[in-house]
Amino acid sequence: MKKRLFTPGPTPVPEHVLLTMAEPIIHHRHPEFRELFERLSKNLQYLFQTSQDVISLTSSGSGSMEAAVVNLLSPGDTAITVNGGKFGERWGELCRANGVNAVEIAVEWGTAVTADEIVESIKAHPETKAVFVTHSETSTGVAIDVKTIAQAVHANSGAVFVVDGITAVGALEMRMDEWGLDVVVTGSQKGLMIPPGLAFIALSEKAWKLVESSHCHRYYFDLLKARKSLKGNDTPWTPATTLLIGVDVALEMIRKETLEKVWERHSRLAAAVRAGVQALGLRLLAKSPSNALTAIWNPEVPDVKVFNNALKKKYGITVAGGQGHLKDKIFRISHLGYYDELDVLSVIGAIELSLRDAGYVFEPGAGVKAAQTVFLNESW
Amino acid sequence: MKKRLFTPGPTPVPEHVLLTMAEPIIHHRHPEFRELFERLSKNLQYLFQTSQDVISLTSSGSGSMEAAVVNLLSPGDTAITVNGGKFGERWGELCRANGVNAVEIAVEWGTAVTADEIVESIKAHPETKAVFVTHSETSTGVAIDVKTIAQAVHANSGAVFVVDGITAVGALEMRMDEWGLDVVVTGSQKGLMIPPGLAFIALSEKAWKLVESSHCHRYYFDLLKARKSLKGNDTPWTPATTLLIGVDVALEMIRKETLEKVWERHSRLAAAVRAGVQALGLRLLAKSPSNALTAIWNPEVPDVKVFNNALKKKYGITVAGGQGHLKDKIFRISHLGYYDELDVLSVIGAIELSLRDAGYVFEPGAGVKAAQTVFLNESW
Repeated sequence: MKKRLFTPGPTPVPEHVLLTMAEPIIHHRHPEFRELFERLSKNLQYLFQTSQDVISLTSSGSGSMEAAVVNLLSPGDTAITVNGGKFGERWGELCRANGVNAVEIAVEWGTAVTADEIVESIKAHPETKAVFVTHSETSTGVAIDVKTIAQAVHANSGAVFVVDGITAVGALEMRMDEWGLDVVVTGSQKGLMIPPGLAFIALSEKAWKLVESSHCHRYYFDLLKARKSLKGNDTPWTPATTLLIGVDVALEMIRKETLEKVWERHSRLAAAVRAGVQALGLRLLAKSPSNALTAIWNPEVPDVKVFNNALKKKYGITVAGGQGHLKDKIFRISHLGYYDELDVLSVIGAIELSLRDAGYVFEPGAGVKAAQTVFLNESW
Repeated sequence: MKKRLFTPGPTPVPEHVLLTMAEPIIHHRHPEFRELFERLSKNLQYLFQTSQDVISLTSSGSGSMEAAVVNLLSPGDTAITVNGGKFGERWGELCRANGVNAVEIAVEWGTAVTADEIVESIKAHPETKAVFVTHSETSTGVAIDVKTIAQAVHANSGAVFVVDGITAVGALEMRMDEWGLDVVVTGSQKGLMIPPGLAFIALSEKAWKLVESSHCHRYYFDLLKARKSLKGNDTPWTPATTLLIGVDVALEMIRKETLEKVWERHSRLAAAVRAGVQALGLRLLAKSPSNALTAIWNPEVPDVKVFNNALKKKYGITVAGGQGHLKDKIFRISHLGYYDELDVLSVIGAIELSLRDAGYVFEPGAGVKAAQTVFLNESW
């Protein structure tokens, strides 16, 4: 059976990227690799829209989140975190695991935190050193307005503003320097279209100053060491070379398409998925949906297992289920990374066919038609 | 030009492993991947010669070294480390970075630490909670007798015995349970023949007890969390799936050859390399050489650059240089992982040809002949 992956990480890897990564291995301290590493580090600056160094870490995205916490803060410091999903919750866990006092803003999963809520928390905790948010919350499909929130944070405190961009970078508009984002982290298996195993982090000058004075214990994730190595197009530890070779090719693709067009494409595909599933009578979880993925309440059929089984086993489609208290209540379709219009028609089509198998009543073809209407940008 | 890599990490990746890793990406929470992860976790136990869980980490080998330190110890604890090379030195750095009092035994680089030296240090520091050693020191090509040292440690203290097996596992005889090694770590780009990006760690029951009472800050490298996930053939964070797929194939190769034959092969190739370079009048750095790599003093020619350039640019051979104070003084040939007898003849042959280019005087063919003599196990 032909298999199609629609999960928000890993996302599909372009075939030519897979084959480039399969070329004979080269050594990371040799000129050939350093040249590649210099080029990809520059292209990462374009991806992050920053003039700052973007540091590559061999870890999952969570490793880059830990790098942010242990490099910016010291035990006893106060930080504000936002729990609007599993990944926002992780910022709080990371702070507490490192002796940082995490003040958590709890928002209903599916809802976006507002600048006002964050300012209110800052005013109640003026000692706050860092505010941690999630640009695109992978567990709920919610996107937040990081641009507006960044302005509000800077207008009301001296805290650094840290953005988990793991499912946002390379999908949602994000301009690190222009928007005043002090720290941005992302992973390789998302908008970058590469297998998991790499994470990336960039820091503003203000954030680097904090790093110099912070004293959480750190070694593997020591960013000062990584920044020093980067000056020589090197890393402190042996990096995941084959994955970096893949990132290099992927970044060339993004450069060629241009970041603006990549963002537009994600916006268009996301609108089509939302229109498609809603035309079938399904409901979205997110009140402020991300263009990277769409979380949908499970269809109101007597037994949702029939639907899931048909999607997976009859049509070869892998989507993601719910996490935490949303387990078995939602499913999530990713349109993050290497996807186009026809991929969206495939997944909406498979959903229609699987809903029919599950005995759900809807107008046949309505989902696919609604998605196509978005692509045509007119009614037909 | 045909290129040949003889560096002690990364080591050459077998072609069919590269192509298996290039297959379309699968999701790490799906049955297909869990089945693979269960099989490879069992095969890792065979590789480590342990009945304990072997935990896979998405990081370089240094990440697994940090995992050992932050999970076993608490700030203020005392540990003994052995600095006989760059990687032994790293244990000390890791301890200090995490608030652990590291008592360092300094041994001359090129020399193996003895059980007596370690026992002496233990007696001077009876509060020692852990002893950290390097089985095969990659910077010097020295192997130590971990079996004898483990016995001595256990006879003289209650400390756990931690072994950096990064260039040893899958190359040198190592029997974790039988020899009483409490913790063993390794990386993917060494004896496992996979690109860099993964590390592995296994702990004895005694070591796990220490983990439960230790309180270094940790999150990404939290081994209790990883052990809990492993029960469900899962990982706490998204793992480097494509690299794990490669490890699965590589472990099948090792199982098929059998670990005993893998160790024998490494012993045979190492003996041939040592015989070959010594027959050319070159001198070994290590007094107790590792079967994973051979460190050789630079040839006594007026300008060693001619030799290095010929090796690299005329014959396409990449070897490793010296690290730390041995920079420019030695070169290191790896015979760790996917190598056979004819690879050894290639590298010794290239050394002969490059030495001739550099004007070094020796009996032509003597190196290759000495290597072949080892393979024949008789004189000819």
